Amino acid sequence: MSERISRRKLFGLGAAGVAAAGAGTVALRVAGEEAGSASPTSVHVAALSDAVPFYGEHQAGIVTPAQDRLHFVAFDVITDKRAELVELLQEWTAAAARMTQGKDAGTFGAVGGVLEAPPDDTGEALGLPASGLTLTVGFGGSLFDDRFGLAAKKPAALADLPRFPGDALLPEISGGDICVQACANDPQVAVHAIRNLARIGFGRVSVRWSQLGFGRTSSTSRAQATPRNLMGFKDGTNNLKLEDKALLEDQLWAAAADGPAWMAGGSYLVTRKIRMTVETWDRAPLAEQQEIFGRDKGEGAPLGGKGEFDPIDFTLKDSAGEPLIKADAHIRLAHHSHNGGARLLRRGYNYVDGSDGLGRLDAGLFFMAYQRDPHRQFVPIQLSLARTDLLNEYIKHVSSGLFACPGGVHDAGDHWGRALFA
Amino acid sequence: MSERISRRKLFGLGAAGVAAAGAGTVALRVAGEEAGSASPTSVHVAALSDAVPFYGEHQAGIVTPAQDRLHFVAFDVITDKRAELVELLQEWTAAAARMTQGKDAGTFGAVGGVLEAPPDDTGEALGLPASGLTLTVGFGGSLFDDRFGLAAKKPAALADLPRFPGDALLPEISGGDICVQACANDPQVAVHAIRNLARIGFGRVSVRWSQLGFGRTSSTSRAQATPRNLMGFKDGTNNLKLEDKALLEDQLWAAAADGPAWMAGGSYLVTRKIRMTVETWDRAPLAEQQEIFGRDKGEGAPLGGKGEFDPIDFTLKDSAGEPLIKADAHIRLAHHSHNGGARLLRRGYNYVDGSDGLGRLDAGLFFMAYQRDPHRQFVPIQLSLARTDLLNEYIKHVSSGLFACPGGVHDAGDHWGRALFA
Repeated sequence: MSERISRRKLFGLGAAGVAAAGAGTVALRVAGEEAGSASPTSVHVAALSDAVPFYGEHQAGIVTPAQDRLHFVAFDVITDKRAELVELLQEWTAAAARMTQGKDAGTFGAVGGVLEAPPDDTGEALGLPASGLTLTVGFGGSLFDDRFGLAAKKPAALADLPRFPGDALLPEISGGDICVQACANDPQVAVHAIRNLARIGFGRVSVRWSQLGFGRTSSTSRAQATPRNLMGFKDGTNNLKLEDKALLEDQLWAAAADGPAWMAGGSYLVTRKIRMTVETWDRAPLAEQQEIFGRDKGEGAPLGGKGEFDPIDFTLKDSAGEPLIKADAHIRLAHHSHNGGARLLRRGYNYVDGSDGLGRLDAGLFFMAYQRDPHRQFVPIQLSLARTDLLNEYIKHVSSGLFACPGGVHDAGDHWGRALFA
Repeated sequence: MSERISRRKLFGLGAAGVAAAGAGTVALRVAGEEAGSASPTSVHVAALSDAVPFYGEHQAGIVTPAQDRLHFVAFDVITDKRAELVELLQEWTAAAARMTQGKDAGTFGAVGGVLEAPPDDTGEALGLPASGLTLTVGFGGSLFDDRFGLAAKKPAALADLPRFPGDALLPEISGGDICVQACANDPQVAVHAIRNLARIGFGRVSVRWSQLGFGRTSSTSRAQATPRNLMGFKDGTNNLKLEDKALLEDQLWAAAADGPAWMAGGSYLVTRKIRMTVETWDRAPLAEQQEIFGRDKGEGAPLGGKGEFDPIDFTLKDSAGEPLIKADAHIRLAHHSHNGGARLLRRGYNYVDGSDGLGRLDAGLFFMAYQRDPHRQFVPIQLSLARTDLLNEYIKHVSSGLFACPGGVHDAGDHWGRALFA
């Protein structure tokens, strides 16, 4: 077994809400190795249960090494009072700061309050560690209408995405005024966080749609191995990663000069729910599957290469003189060299939402990608893909969202949306 | 921090697909303890990634310590040929025996076959360990109609459940000819298993409905701590557990004398999808929540008691002379002393299926309970609950299933349903 595989398995831990809080730190070790061994197969993953810092220049949950579970929610604002919305954002921020550190949502918690009042926390995460929970907020274009006086502050980058060829979007699971992405290594912790934000928002926001996901389909750090999507292929090999500092400045983070000022240090999130017709895919020959992606299924190597991270050589020909990686192969169309250098920080999750009533699993990829300007990055890439990607025979985009995720909350005096509403 | 809490946290690991296969065994340790320490807080949970034996007297996945993730599927049989159905059950058994041991579904696997054919496995679990996967099969009453000549073999215990007060069952997510319960400590592994069984069944069965779950809501072993449901309460404190050998013979396993012979060593599974109106629940005062359950929310102690496992004293009165545990409290109505001694081995999971289009999370409990005879166990208990349980204000049963799960597959020459079709 190669070291890469060993590491992959350790990082493929699933929702390992590994015990920590109050019990010291916990380490995973490959048995048979001595404590303190510096062998590269001895990986300490205490972070699976640990808390991720909430305050910072950027919001957590973007370059944070991708946790294994997702609960994503889009809210509609139902109050028309600006002050009530700001108050809610303040309350949410305080709750998020607490929950990401493994605490109850409110000061009195699930059981610490008075018997005559509803608890300040719903209780299902009592006793569970922080589990790497991050909560990341974004504002949709619809928030910048005339309700809250925000029209002048709408970023150009938040202009509606164009309609792409093949789009089959359902409006009831698309868009939304405000989104919150909860990622954690335990789904109960991610669900608890979203549920408590919804509880706090009662009367001011309404859940428009929400999505659960598992088995992160991209890595955001070179310390993570590449997971597989539900087509069985490694997904996100060439993803932007937190170690790519210069690329992140160029491709991920909105700069003050990009305008508006309130988005400095933020990033734009595109969500696309991509249904896969897995039953059809599963009957496609292995050769066809590999041609469609342009990679081999086992190792994830680009066709013509041997290792997953081998450079892609788009010029190679097969024995008939045809391109080894076809003109319409997924990795060719999606590659930054094909899209004016545009890259994405992907952070998607696999989903299965039961079945569809037609004898098929309702399964696919909840695609999420962060970027500096979706109209220069996601849009050209998706236009390339939507027109001719060989994969289109097996997928359908059923939901779409675009959200402006501001810079981080700096300290306890700051709150989500402070700069926007200032 | 008490030892119980430490242990609870370790066992609340979530979908910890902890690395194992090929890398030796993996142990979780509380850091700071020496290897080999016999301290009760040093818990080895290699089982989270290990394989559960497939062959045995009983099917795995019933008393097996409850894994943290579920993918449950109900199939309709669409072939009318008995031989095709038997052949499918043989193929499924072979695939289940492989997958539960961490192998690909088929001999040639996801990448080991010929390029010109679809792979024998869909690939998304490549490199993941067995993760405690169990696959448990059951046969619904509808299978015993005139299609396959099974009418004479239908157990009396498989007679339809009565309609219970308040039932709001949706037929499209109820029933089914055959069910398979996949439990694992990594959702990707559970999903992979069901997806491959559906793939193998193409043309012979069709997915009728399927359900994902997380955060097991009952323990099936005294070595597991009691997890919490989405009402924030510990759930399943008094569940039947694998250590209760005599009770299991009396309450869980069908005996040869119960008839029919093909069900000896098996058990009957009742599934109920119980939607919770969590938004309303979250606005109920703590005192009301505790009165409804009859337990305190923090510790899980019965009202009047201190510890979770304290005996329940239904005779206690409050200062006004009223029963401390109300006449319609959930734990009173559900208790075996209230139901002629009837008990269940519960194995449910929390679920969140996104939102309901009305601004609310679509969340609740996917209740599963195994028992020797549902008409002597689940039915009287549920009749008690459905009539007057204080909890009914906050829940709604939207799906129901009843399945006869036969005894275990004994060896590689045996297969699911062999005794039934013999």
